[in-house]
Amino acid sequence: MSAIYDRSEVTRQIVSAKVRKGIKWADVATQVGQSKAWTTAACLGQMQMTKAQADVVGGIFDLNDEAIAWLQIVPYKGSLPTPVPTDPLIYRWYEIVSVYGTTIKELIHEEFGDGIMSAIDFSMDIDRQADPKGDRVNVVLSGKFLPYKMY
Amino acid sequence: MSAIYDRSEVTRQIVSAKVRKGIKWADVATQVGQSKAWTTAACLGQMQMTKAQADVVGGIFDLNDEAIAWLQIVPYKGSLPTPVPTDPLIYRWYEIVSVYGTTIKELIHEEFGDGIMSAIDFSMDIDRQADPKGDRVNVVLSGKFLPYKMY
Amino acid sequence: MSAIYDRSEVTRQIVSAKVRKGIKWADVATQVGQSKAWTTAACLGQMQMTKAQADVVGGIFDLNDEAIAWLQIVPYKGSLPTPVPTDPLIYRWYEIVSVYGTTIKELIHEEFGDGIMSAIDFSMDIDRQADPKGDRVNVVLSGKFLPYKMY
Amino acid sequence: MSAIYDRSEVTRQIVSAKVRKGIKWADVATQVGQSKAWTTAACLGQMQMTKAQADVVGGIFDLNDEAIAWLQIVPYKGSLPTPVPTDPLIYRWYEIVSVYGTTIKELIHEEFGDGIMSAIDFSMDIDRQADPKGDRVNVVLSGKFLPYKMY
Amino acid sequence: MSAIYDRSEVTRQIVSAKVRKGIKWADVATQVGQSKAWTTAACLGQMQMTKAQADVVGGIFDLNDEAIAWLQIVPYKGSLPTPVPTDPLIYRWYEIVSVYGTTIKELIHEEFGDGIMSAIDFSMDIDRQADPKGDRVNVVLSGKFLPYKMY
Amino acid sequence: MSAIYDRSEVTRQIVSAKVRKGIKWADVATQVGQSKAWTTAACLGQMQMTKAQADVVGGIFDLNDEAIAWLQIVPYKGSLPTPVPTDPLIYRWYEIVSVYGTTIKELIHEEFGDGIMSAIDFSMDIDRQADPKGDRVNVVLSGKFLPYKMY
Amino acid sequence: MSAIYDRSEVTRQIVSAKVRKGIKWADVATQVGQSKAWTTAACLGQMQMTKAQADVVGGIFDLNDEAIAWLQIVPYKGSLPTPVPTDPLIYRWYEIVSVYGTTIKELIHEEFGDGIMSAIDFSMDIDRQADPKGDRVNVVLSGKFLPYKMY
Amino acid sequence: MSAIYDRSEVTRQIVSAKVRKGIKWADVATQVGQSKAWTTAACLGQMQMTKAQADVVGGIFDLNDEAIAWLQIVPYKGSLPTPVPTDPLIYRWYEIVSVYGTTIKELIHEEFGDGIMSAIDFSMDIDRQADPKGDRVNVVLSGKFLPYKMY
Amino acid sequence: MSAIYDRSEVTRQIVSAKVRKGIKWADVATQVGQSKAWTTAACLGQMQMTKAQADVVGGIFDLNDEAIAWLQIVPYKGSLPTPVPTDPLIYRWYEIVSVYGTTIKELIHEEFGDGIMSAIDFSMDIDRQADPKGDRVNVVLSGKFLPYKMY
Amino acid sequence: MSAIYDRSEVTRQIVSAKVRKGIKWADVATQVGQSKAWTTAACLGQMQMTKAQADVVGGIFDLNDEAIAWLQIVPYKGSLPTPVPTDPLIYRWYEIVSVYGTTIKELIHEEFGDGIMSAIDFSMDIDRQADPKGDRVNVVLSGKFLPYKMY
Repeated sequence: MSAIYDRSEVTRQIVSAKVRKGIKWADVATQVGQSKAWTTAACLGQMQMTKAQADVVGGIFDLNDEAIAWLQIVPYKGSLPTPVPTDPLIYRWYEIVSVYGTTIKELIHEEFGDGIMSAIDFSMDIDRQADPKGDRVNVVLSGKFLPYKMY
Repeated sequence: MSAIYDRSEVTRQIVSAKVRKGIKWADVATQVGQSKAWTTAACLGQMQMTKAQADVVGGIFDLNDEAIAWLQIVPYKGSLPTPVPTDPLIYRWYEIVSVYGTTIKELIHEEFGDGIMSAIDFSMDIDRQADPKGDRVNVVLSGKFLPYKMY
Repeated sequence: MSAIYDRSEVTRQIVSAKVRKGIKWADVATQVGQSKAWTTAACLGQMQMTKAQADVVGGIFDLNDEAIAWLQIVPYKGSLPTPVPTDPLIYRWYEIVSVYGTTIKELIHEEFGDGIMSAIDFSMDIDRQADPKGDRVNVVLSGKFLPYKMY
Repeated sequence: MSAIYDRSEVTRQIVSAKVRKGIKWADVATQVGQSKAWTTAACLGQMQMTKAQADVVGGIFDLNDEAIAWLQIVPYKGSLPTPVPTDPLIYRWYEIVSVYGTTIKELIHEEFGDGIMSAIDFSMDIDRQADPKGDRVNVVLSGKFLPYKMY
Repeated sequence: MSAIYDRSEVTRQIVSAKVRKGIKWADVATQVGQSKAWTTAACLGQMQMTKAQADVVGGIFDLNDEAIAWLQIVPYKGSLPTPVPTDPLIYRWYEIVSVYGTTIKELIHEEFGDGIMSAIDFSMDIDRQADPKGDRVNVVLSGKFLPYKMY
Repeated sequence: MSAIYDRSEVTRQIVSAKVRKGIKWADVATQVGQSKAWTTAACLGQMQMTKAQADVVGGIFDLNDEAIAWLQIVPYKGSLPTPVPTDPLIYRWYEIVSVYGTTIKELIHEEFGDGIMSAIDFSMDIDRQADPKGDRVNVVLSGKFLPYKMY
Repeated sequence: MSAIYDRSEVTRQIVSAKVRKGIKWADVATQVGQSKAWTTAACLGQMQMTKAQADVVGGIFDLNDEAIAWLQIVPYKGSLPTPVPTDPLIYRWYEIVSVYGTTIKELIHEEFGDGIMSAIDFSMDIDRQADPKGDRVNVVLSGKFLPYKMY
Repeated sequence: MSAIYDRSEVTRQIVSAKVRKGIKWADVATQVGQSKAWTTAACLGQMQMTKAQADVVGGIFDLNDEAIAWLQIVPYKGSLPTPVPTDPLIYRWYEIVSVYGTTIKELIHEEFGDGIMSAIDFSMDIDRQADPKGDRVNVVLSGKFLPYKMY
Repeated sequence: MSAIYDRSEVTRQIVSAKVRKGIKWADVATQVGQSKAWTTAACLGQMQMTKAQADVVGGIFDLNDEAIAWLQIVPYKGSLPTPVPTDPLIYRWYEIVSVYGTTIKELIHEEFGDGIMSAIDFSMDIDRQADPKGDRVNVVLSGKFLPYKMY
Repeated sequence: MSAIYDRSEVTRQIVSAKVRKGIKWADVATQVGQSKAWTTAACLGQMQMTKAQADVVGGIFDLNDEAIAWLQIVPYKGSLPTPVPTDPLIYRWYEIVSVYGTTIKELIHEEFGDGIMSAIDFSMDIDRQADPKGDRVNVVLSGKFLPYKMY
């Protein structure tokens, strides 16, 4: 058994086991007891798990003790291989930031003044919205507003 | 009166007039009769206006006829000066795509199969959510799911 | 037998077997029952296959069960190693986008208004066109027009 | 009257006049006597015009003699401001090259052997295809196949 | 009097007046009533001023009303012309992030768990520290720790 | 036992052992007898250790003689995988340089004249600062001022 | 014997054998019966060989059947690891394109009109030219002129 | 009459006059008394002229004394706006370097040993080569071989 | 008289006057009383001048008072337009860093241990070295060694 | 024993053996009979060795025959992993080129006219210069001046 040098090796083990065993993220989230978005992000190496969560995830994906230890480490975050993503689904989100970036900035500043919407004290929810003209992806993002401090 | 060569010149005239006259996007949207997000994006050179909308916007920002004609042209879209945005507020959105990109991809595919969430048949709503621990920015994104076609 | 961690490993197995066994994409497409373009793209890791399609492809290229499971996963798309492609054949297509990009934009907008030609509800057909001055490559692209939504 | 230093200045004059006067590319093409694609590309600084064509175009867009002389010069080609285009319509074409690039390569080589599809001895036609599920953009590309020479 | 289209034009007016009139940032900060770091950053287009602050700054640097209005707008932040700064003084800071980046990450996580040090609820103080072997630049950075939220 | 070709292999062994054995940087620093910041940076491949230090570190992380020899070599420094870091914690530091870069430059020059704050004759201290509104990360950076030489 | 997944693996086998066995490209070209430039490019993974050529090359460099099959595949072309080459000899050629690029463009257009010099119907010859002031590298490039098509 | 701040301003004056007056590079070269390639490169800001040459060129293109003085200055060389050129004619040359780069390197080293082909002690000749299958562009490059020095 | 917004405007005035008036850097250095290298760098916007030096330089190049004030400001350093320089003379220096970079690192570390050669407490001298085989450029660089501090 | 496919593998063997055995470059240079700079560069894969030199180096670093053969091949040069180096020692050299680049260009052209300082017919010497204020690194670079040829 060779040593694990990198959190991304554990991510690859999880993804490999997921395909091999046909696991669903929704089921993982239920067992972990957190939302689908947070749980998936944590499995894909973007969030730190507690020991209890790591044990559950380790059980689901047949991970060994060393891999389970890595799940409890704060990872080096960033899930994409290139600054501008090539995958069409992810690119559409990048495009939204590109096209609407200054709009988002203007509207948040008009409502709140100078500051940012936190990407840390943040949650995301992704759901299907039935629609006779074709179902829609409905996404709710919620981030605490953090005002710039004057000093 | 010199000619206008580029939609971005009109954007700069709008932004300059907005600062000089203290105009609010919410008021512009009310007069245009569309949402705040769409209206702001259209003023910032990301959407095409109808003649009626362009006339309203031209009146608000003191634009001449040539500028009003440009508002009715489909613009070359993309509102940010660099591939990785430097502005902290906009960067947080880029960071969300970077950190959650593979998560978003996994969850949409798990729910819908292969395809994308449209950034064209798309709407966005940005609001304040009161919270005793500090108000939050609440964003709702809604995009039609477009399945990949097999042929 | 080591685990598969990535769809691109399956692509490499397919390409390796194709060279070794002298398989033709046209024959793969016939057996899969879809077009040459879709079938080739799917084998090269750009499209998701159904179970039936994956079984056929697995049989043709001697893939094991885990690899066949990967064929049914939505891949991380993007088939080129660099933003500006170095291969002359593929570069010519990039050059067409570079030289004709604004022309394509103008003509689609003149005909349809603001919106895009879908790359998802999309098909492509590549054929030989006999010509006494040298045969030509004839390509037909068909994409649904998606108008920008006003909201 | 100041001197013109660059073909792109003439392009900007043409685009400015087009917006101001509400000209259509299809009408320009009819008067020039070439296809819509070639004519638009030529006006946008990607093709060289003959004297007769330049005179017609100069008349339509109110260009002076120096600008008309520039239309007859071979331009420095490339119509996009960034290697990866930010405009959604043009990006979809870039995405097609990214996703289908290796597919296009495989199928052309399977049919023709080593070589390229010319982007010089090339034509493009863009049309509306009526469809009850939503009209489609239909594009036909035709390029001479050029085999690599052995020497 | 031509219109102002961009916050960076006001920054250039401020810097130009500063050189011409020999003004010191420390004196500006005293008059504005905030720290040197915040005041300088605000003058250089990185922070939003209140009306009172903007009036003081406008008086110091001979700005007109439109420029003073711009000082009260949230700017598009980012003060450097290139992703990797060329100026040796600023580069040394970039180098500290490059060399010590993973160290900073490890030590903050060891002390606080997963989260970040805020760059918004943040202050900075730069001072001279006398030292017989050569005076030192002493910098104190203070940022609120923001833990990642589990949901 | 295969040879070690690169200092980064030793870093990966150290990080792997740290996760597996649950070691803390603060404890390593105590045993090495240097500050937390320097010790962590040295273990992560950014500083050269003395033989005595390398022996201590080798003992803590179960390194073999060849790895211990590598700890005493001056490493090729730079700890981040991309010019603009993707990890949110490290990015915040990059953002501070981006937003405050020109401010830092102005204030150091105003106090010291032309020159730089050394990143070599440099120390850093990272600590928790208790705060009823949420604890803060307190960082003290101290670098010798180096004036440009006239010659 | 492990499978070959990529043409570049065959290139590496060829280069490795060439060093080990002290083979000269000129001799390979003689045996293959083509020019030195074409033969070397083909061995380095830039051209497709016929079966007869591949058998000869396989014999010279001790390649197995699978590698010989790969020599007959059209490769993904592009022989350099970076967009701007770091190797001084190759950089000088890049510099010639950089310094003389617009000159080459002007002179070809002055002689031929709009179009390109083909890099496909192309040959190259590299020879030593004796010179008392130091021998020279003499290179002859010949490419068919391809005029842009009007349509 | 405003001052000239940059050699590229003179290049733009030359190119502007060339279009306006319909001048040919071949005629300029004849009057200057040097080759077409050198003369064109010199006019386009890549070579330094003698006073006599600059006077001739100034006469042809109606340049004033200050512009003529700039022609005698060594310019900052590099004639292309992007590292990877977008213009198809110039790109083909870049492609030749990309595809044949390692071939050129191998053949020059096989003939001469380690060193480079000079791009300074260098000449280039571009001519039309009549060919019944379509005329060809014939280019002869001649550069002194410079061996690496051992010391 | 318009205001000066940027040190680079003064550099352009200096270079323009130098060409117009035929001034030599060696003479400027003599009058300023510093070395050729330092004086040229200072004039080109890389060093801060004293008031006395700025007055001398202002006199030589006909600068007004505002420009002379800018000469006494610490400039934003970095004299090249691209990260990899296109000018052949400057590129050769970049190439030396590229080819010899690790050699320089090894030899300085072998002699001095961990640390750097200062680019601040630094001087440079460039001279002609007569040589019967062709004169040589002789460059002497001298930088203080700065050891990394352990803390 | 597996085959060697790349000169960089030999470099890694040399560096690995150097650390393991505690070898000094100065001693290698003495045994090879060339300067320290050339010898180190050659060992690090930037120069071609003669058979005699390669045998000596192979003996010192325990290389096998195949590795020794590779030492006699002209390598693909360029020793740094990124265009802008991250290592502080090497970066200082890059910074010198960035800050002094235009100065170097001006002074060499003022002395020699148009041309370059050769990086091929070039030598470098790095030495310690004792100094009571702290020892200095003294570097002497000598490169033949190569004038641009007029033709």
